Amino acid sequence: MKFSPLVDDLIKALQCLPGVGPRSAQRMAFQLLERDRQGGARLGDALATAMREVGHCRQCRTYTEQDLCQICANPKRGETGQLCVVESPADLLAIESAGQYAGRYFVLMGHLSPLDGIGPDDIGLDSLDAMLAAESWREVILATNPTVEGDATAQYIADMAREHGAEISRIAHGVPVGGELEYVDGTTLALSFSGRKKL
Amino acid sequence: MKFSPLVDDLIKALQCLPGVGPRSAQRMAFQLLERDRQGGARLGDALATAMREVGHCRQCRTYTEQDLCQICANPKRGETGQLCVVESPADLLAIESAGQYAGRYFVLMGHLSPLDGIGPDDIGLDSLDAMLAAESWREVILATNPTVEGDATAQYIADMAREHGAEISRIAHGVPVGGELEYVDGTTLALSFSGRKKL
Repeated sequence: MKFSPLVDDLIKALQCLPGVGPRSAQRMAFQLLERDRQGGARLGDALATAMREVGHCRQCRTYTEQDLCQICANPKRGETGQLCVVESPADLLAIESAGQYAGRYFVLMGHLSPLDGIGPDDIGLDSLDAMLAAESWREVILATNPTVEGDATAQYIADMAREHGAEISRIAHGVPVGGELEYVDGTTLALSFSGRKKL
Repeated sequence: MKFSPLVDDLIKALQCLPGVGPRSAQRMAFQLLERDRQGGARLGDALATAMREVGHCRQCRTYTEQDLCQICANPKRGETGQLCVVESPADLLAIESAGQYAGRYFVLMGHLSPLDGIGPDDIGLDSLDAMLAAESWREVILATNPTVEGDATAQYIADMAREHGAEISRIAHGVPVGGELEYVDGTTLALSFSGRKKL
């Protein structure tokens, strides 16, 4: 014995969300049915619309339902001649929230991972190559994650971008602000020493 | 700077789910957009349909999109003459999964809580009273939670059901199977002693 078909469907469908198993799905379904039908209906609409209409920006590949995302469509963002390469739209948002960077982005939507069969074309490096060739860039900033795959991807893009004559940089890695040296791992500490600056 | 309007809407709407904050909502939205658009669309449909169509069973008040739920509609379940009173549809499901009970249910959808302004009519005790009067019941089993409110609710229903002449019982409380005495709280242990059975 289970619930009625519609409630069962809802509980099953909720389990497509990351980190949601049968128990949490049941709790979510009951919470929505009991206390927040409006919110549930709004979520249903938002999901249907987003899944149908959100695509990728023609230039930078981040999520947008328009042809160009808000950043690519803003002519001011192109004036700096800087292009920042990130792995995901979430990384893009984190950098935007920091408020330091005013140039454009390119979102790989992943990283090179030959073991998983993810090659250069799967992360849009052909588009990036075309983009580097089409405009003249002052600087390409590689902001992929400091993981083995992220570093390899950065290295690959650096080699590619060098042919187009742009200056290439990699974001700094080291001890995070507010972190305590005692708890920072060895690799990060080693990077923070090799990347030290003269005062 | 945020995401495009549709992605923003989706991230905001996801936060109506219990236990989902801005960061998890963002992660869920990206996961669906990137890896499971079909699942997302299915969830959108399931939510819209369930929020619109799921109501309460006319008799037992559990969730169903039909007039009567599957249990109330099954004539076999009425033959035992037993009525089990639970607080929520999740409790009903837990008892069904145990596979021990074959009678009917009444779902309070809450418990008496005078401090929160929840009185007898808010948890459907008027319908329960009418149901007890309309049919002849052999036994009313009170399976509300073993909390202060659950106990008070059980006591209230017991007083009410006694007028209709049915036998009234409360589910047993004690040490759970597989639990270790050492880690069981004092109140539960006291209950397991006062409720001990002769062998």
